[in-house]
Amino acid sequence: MVLVETRNPLNIGAAARAMANFGFARLRVVNPYEVAFREARSAVGAAPLLKSAEEFASLAEAVADCELVVGTTSLGHRELQHPLRRLETGARLLRQRTRSGAAALLFGSEKFGLSNEDLSHCHWLIRIATAQPDLSMNLGQAVAVCLYELSRESKAVTARPDRIRRATSGEAEQVTSLLLEALERSGYVNPRTAGSTEEKVRRLVRRMELAGRDAPVLMGMLKQILWKLGKTSD
Amino acid sequence: MVLVETRNPLNIGAAARAMANFGFARLRVVNPYEVAFREARSAVGAAPLLKSAEEFASLAEAVADCELVVGTTSLGHRELQHPLRRLETGARLLRQRTRSGAAALLFGSEKFGLSNEDLSHCHWLIRIATAQPDLSMNLGQAVAVCLYELSRESKAVTARPDRIRRATSGEAEQVTSLLLEALERSGYVNPRTAGSTEEKVRRLVRRMELAGRDAPVLMGMLKQILWKLGKTSD
Repeated sequence: MVLVETRNPLNIGAAARAMANFGFARLRVVNPYEVAFREARSAVGAAPLLKSAEEFASLAEAVADCELVVGTTSLGHRELQHPLRRLETGARLLRQRTRSGAAALLFGSEKFGLSNEDLSHCHWLIRIATAQPDLSMNLGQAVAVCLYELSRESKAVTARPDRIRRATSGEAEQVTSLLLEALERSGYVNPRTAGSTEEKVRRLVRRMELAGRDAPVLMGMLKQILWKLGKTSD
Repeated sequence: MVLVETRNPLNIGAAARAMANFGFARLRVVNPYEVAFREARSAVGAAPLLKSAEEFASLAEAVADCELVVGTTSLGHRELQHPLRRLETGARLLRQRTRSGAAALLFGSEKFGLSNEDLSHCHWLIRIATAQPDLSMNLGQAVAVCLYELSRESKAVTARPDRIRRATSGEAEQVTSLLLEALERSGYVNPRTAGSTEEKVRRLVRRMELAGRDAPVLMGMLKQILWKLGKTSD
């Protein structure tokens, strides 16, 4: 990742932290304000990454060994001469090559973004689709979103990690019986409509889609209530 | 979106800016540091959003009208009692309901995240898959990544018409109170561990994901049981 002329130490720190969060290791900075860069090195969590960050006097030098250079833009403020891709699409193209280190992702300064000169080093551009085109994103947040998308596992979406075992019908039926008994002892059940009440309670319990481990807990609660109710009628 | 006990005005501002970027309008804050909240209101770009932010003294009140409450966690620091989903998966489930305003996404304080008490109000949890489990994300960046994913263009979003209105958090909380009272009167609750029992019951009720029409039915049942139990102790 390459930060070009970043001004705010908080943003350099935030960018480095996001890189650490998403497992990116190589940071290059072009012509940062010296003070900002020094301050940023003390940021939480990202210290090793910032310590090994490489500093360059020009963007040309910073990307000299890269096979693919992709710029980021908030768009709208200038005529673009480059292919522009949404992050979702661009990240897919970038993914392999950033991991192998042959690609660079550029972020411009907070105020002006990447200059036309900077852009001329790019193969193509990425933008994050936002709701208000006139409100640019905070640099640290834009970096986080881009790196998240780059490390996003698309297979995670199709895999359904819902490993929760549901209560079996047998367990649900035990809950139903206990609840029904409590309701009977409390005078909730009208003897004339007892049959439909039972069905109503059964459906109610089924709709709860109890987790397997919740069924015994609920049974324990109902048994205790029944024990107390039992003492009443005796 | 709900920010719980956020301390740093920069983070409140950053969260609001990300909301504006990705087209989310409704921000609620629970018990923020007054100073932080006031300072944040002057942040760039997000001013109108922060001006209309609603402030609450408790999380219960903040989510009372929500049908789905989802917490965020960096994981690893505590035993979780909730289903945990990766952002990619969770966002798909959240998407429709956040847009309609019936769902809340919670972010905890910078230092401690969401407390166990906070978590007991949640139906399930989301985590952002990061490379280093011991290095948590910056709050403003985590918010940006979550909202990006929520508004991310995905062809896989084949509209799932989940037309069942779920019980609101306010309704679920009423069920929780009634059940807890019945358990107390039955001697289920050990006074020494009453606090954790309350959280346990709250989580149990949230996991039921009651349908809107089932909540009053269950309340009616519990009231009847309570009435009967009340006759006992008299």
